[in-house]
Amino acid sequence: MASEKPYLAVTCTAPVNIAVIKYWGKRDEELILPINSSLSVTLHQDQLKTTTTAVISKDFTEDRIWLNGREEDIGQPRIQACLRESEWGSHLGRWGQFQPVPSPPSLPYSGWSLSTAGAASSPPGSESPRGLGTPVSTARSGAFLNKEACRNLRQRPGVSCISDPWQARCQEQVRAALPSGYLPLPTVRRLARKRRSGDEEDPLPLSLNYKVHVASVNNFPTAAGLASSASGYACLAYALAQVYGVESDLSEVARRGSGSACRSLYGGFVEWQMGEQADGKDSVARQVAPELHWPELRVLILVVSAEKKLTGSTVGMQTSVETSPLLRFRAEAVVPARMAEMIRYVKERNFQGFGELTMKDSNQFHATCLDTFPPISYLNDTSRRIIHLVHRFNAHHGQTKVAYTFDAGPNAVIFTLDDTVAEFVAAVRHSFPPESNGDKFLKGLPVKPGPLSDELKAALGMDPTPGGIKYIIATQVGPGPQILDHPHAHLLGPDSLPKPTV
Amino acid sequence: MASEKPYLAVTCTAPVNIAVIKYWGKRDEELILPINSSLSVTLHQDQLKTTTTAVISKDFTEDRIWLNGREEDIGQPRIQACLRESEWGSHLGRWGQFQPVPSPPSLPYSGWSLSTAGAASSPPGSESPRGLGTPVSTARSGAFLNKEACRNLRQRPGVSCISDPWQARCQEQVRAALPSGYLPLPTVRRLARKRRSGDEEDPLPLSLNYKVHVASVNNFPTAAGLASSASGYACLAYALAQVYGVESDLSEVARRGSGSACRSLYGGFVEWQMGEQADGKDSVARQVAPELHWPELRVLILVVSAEKKLTGSTVGMQTSVETSPLLRFRAEAVVPARMAEMIRYVKERNFQGFGELTMKDSNQFHATCLDTFPPISYLNDTSRRIIHLVHRFNAHHGQTKVAYTFDAGPNAVIFTLDDTVAEFVAAVRHSFPPESNGDKFLKGLPVKPGPLSDELKAALGMDPTPGGIKYIIATQVGPGPQILDHPHAHLLGPDSLPKPTV
Repeated sequence: MASEKPYLAVTCTAPVNIAVIKYWGKRDEELILPINSSLSVTLHQDQLKTTTTAVISKDFTEDRIWLNGREEDIGQPRIQACLRESEWGSHLGRWGQFQPVPSPPSLPYSGWSLSTAGAASSPPGSESPRGLGTPVSTARSGAFLNKEACRNLRQRPGVSCISDPWQARCQEQVRAALPSGYLPLPTVRRLARKRRSGDEEDPLPLSLNYKVHVASVNNFPTAAGLASSASGYACLAYALAQVYGVESDLSEVARRGSGSACRSLYGGFVEWQMGEQADGKDSVARQVAPELHWPELRVLILVVSAEKKLTGSTVGMQTSVETSPLLRFRAEAVVPARMAEMIRYVKERNFQGFGELTMKDSNQFHATCLDTFPPISYLNDTSRRIIHLVHRFNAHHGQTKVAYTFDAGPNAVIFTLDDTVAEFVAAVRHSFPPESNGDKFLKGLPVKPGPLSDELKAALGMDPTPGGIKYIIATQVGPGPQILDHPHAHLLGPDSLPKPTV
Repeated sequence: MASEKPYLAVTCTAPVNIAVIKYWGKRDEELILPINSSLSVTLHQDQLKTTTTAVISKDFTEDRIWLNGREEDIGQPRIQACLRESEWGSHLGRWGQFQPVPSPPSLPYSGWSLSTAGAASSPPGSESPRGLGTPVSTARSGAFLNKEACRNLRQRPGVSCISDPWQARCQEQVRAALPSGYLPLPTVRRLARKRRSGDEEDPLPLSLNYKVHVASVNNFPTAAGLASSASGYACLAYALAQVYGVESDLSEVARRGSGSACRSLYGGFVEWQMGEQADGKDSVARQVAPELHWPELRVLILVVSAEKKLTGSTVGMQTSVETSPLLRFRAEAVVPARMAEMIRYVKERNFQGFGELTMKDSNQFHATCLDTFPPISYLNDTSRRIIHLVHRFNAHHGQTKVAYTFDAGPNAVIFTLDDTVAEFVAAVRHSFPPESNGDKFLKGLPVKPGPLSDELKAALGMDPTPGGIKYIIATQVGPGPQILDHPHAHLLGPDSLPKPTV
């Protein structure tokens, strides 16, 4: 796809995924290799997606990236502190120094631009194309980030590691702010080189040396508290692969942006195999069942009013690996059997089994968070009430008709079948009466006003908690990343800068 | 101590204990044998205690028991339903039938009286003294309660298994309502017989056939949500042992009333060794360090405003044993090392180690609750804020100066040293401003108004939650059960009925 064209623009979309067998804990922080396999459901992009435009041009003098309309960079001292003494430092030396440059006042985006020009500190010749292809694992430090530096950073007054538009974590902030998505980009370029270099007749395209402009937006509010890094990094990897002409498996690229992002490279039901190799080559995502395999399955996202979460998931899972005796046991002794069981349930479209195991695995993930020291609590009282509601609802029906799962936050993701959606939404509305935005309580797929019998009301046996749930997004299983053909879809205009938002 | 006297009255007190290595899960429901050892701190009875009077008399025609001024019985259908198809049914056959009898309107106690008279269904001769000594394990059912019956019961409208004045559990309700504390009483009588029967020169005292009247009260409000079954059953076992002349180890008697009650038989720091024998003879409590071993240690009970808890601990731990993969791992692979470690910390008076391990073990206990299916959550948002407060407080000081532990409810029990009490109470008052009862916020041991530096305030970094904590009880390590000599101490008057409360 990549060619010697002086200019190439691609716009893609990628989905959010929700794990039903959870990923928590890395066995290799640098390569983002998990301590256990995981399995997720890809959500439909009609409701939740990231859109990313990547443009390469021989005329660009620097890589630039805009996330949700805001240009990102690494010039801030707190990010620099995070980089110091880490392997990134050595790599950055090859990429040059990044200077904060105030953005032009006419632009609607605040922040900084970054520049690879004037890379005074780069050792001469160090930025050779071959050098760029050096695997990251040759770097001098084994750890992705200097842990202590990062922790110190997070404790500084005024530091907000949760202001990142993609993900509420310091490390993601760093990654996102790296030049043109530093991590995926060189990896994509490396993959491209690797493929081409094995082919004598196909010399390296000039385009691999082109700088890139990237713009990326989510169609769902950050307030939803949904893990948007998965769709974000999947979309970035996918878009960069398009413009640089990479056709190999993108699991590694996406994974190294954010572990669970590799699962967003496919639609339907997706397994991320933890792999065994030290270099992570076999730690890849693969589709277990396609998008249309289980058409009755529905997904409801219950967005819970919440305070800011206190522990981001990257730091959280690191602490869990270090301190929770239960986490290792889970990874080694519990998850392997659960993976096999869950894949069977999906293939058989067995909702009873799927739902119950989904709930158990969510609970066990949060149990290992609580076993972490200091403990991590992502569930709040509203989450607990939703859990209770689901179990009461199922008890009333004498079977598992609804299942919850919670990621690193208080929001519930509910799985159910289409014939149960209306009644369950009515039960939610009864237990969590909408406060002010009654008409905007339900977003996404249309849901008929549901019946709510007095028997069910009595069985729920809960005092209503007004406003506990802000709104519901109704969605379903969806496809993997898509390419948008129409030029109007591009987020970057003819000047290769973000189009003004209307 | 027991004699052939026609009348004997004894009044005792027994303490509450708080586990720092938690007991959760039985390996034998009938004998109340735990799946792991546990370790507790005995709290001082100046602040928290149960007082129990036991009177035996040859003139009594029935066993009767009053808990917190209310006569208890088993005549209610919901309790009957719990007993059906359980081993208790077969035993009750020998004890006779219990009929609900409305209490006389003049009595200040509501409820029922129970009667062993007119035991029409008892097989003739089955209530022989030797028969009473038959170990419960010969009963036809291995399970203490018919689980399904009990679950059904708990789901009936109007059933409140949390109205029991001693403990918020259905099973404890049953036990407490059994004639004269059915469980401890025959066990005490059996122990007495066993001891005597080995002694040819000391024939069985007539008093073993005397009926007993028991009255028991707690000096702390049920609203405190503290596990009162431990002090309650320890006190019952102790008092019955006094009047029936039992001198052997009372661990089994107390334990079979409520597992953790055996730890309330000693002051100071107490280990409940899980034991290995099938009959539970080696599942006993023993003192690890005496009451005065660590005089600087202080205990603060933070009573949290809470809704009724949804899962009692007896049913909860049963479900955990059945469904949580993490619980068994904890019991087998984590607790043994923690017990040894904790005993060492106690003996060395190492607060850093003691405090950190106490917090870790509390967290792991709640983790296994969350891993139970359906999950059990005893911690609420206020509990989580207290946890956060403690970690921030310690982080500010750069060491573990304060430690929390939570039992099967949202209340926090805080351990600290006397030189930290004032500052920590000030931090609690700052984070959880008292609502209406500002002057009654602090109960128990006096606490000086403490300093609260601006640095600490900033370090806590929490929005105050008014009214989240109802009050604080300040206490310390205390002694084991005591005998009150003065006749005025008796809770039963000359008529062997509870004295009117003033």
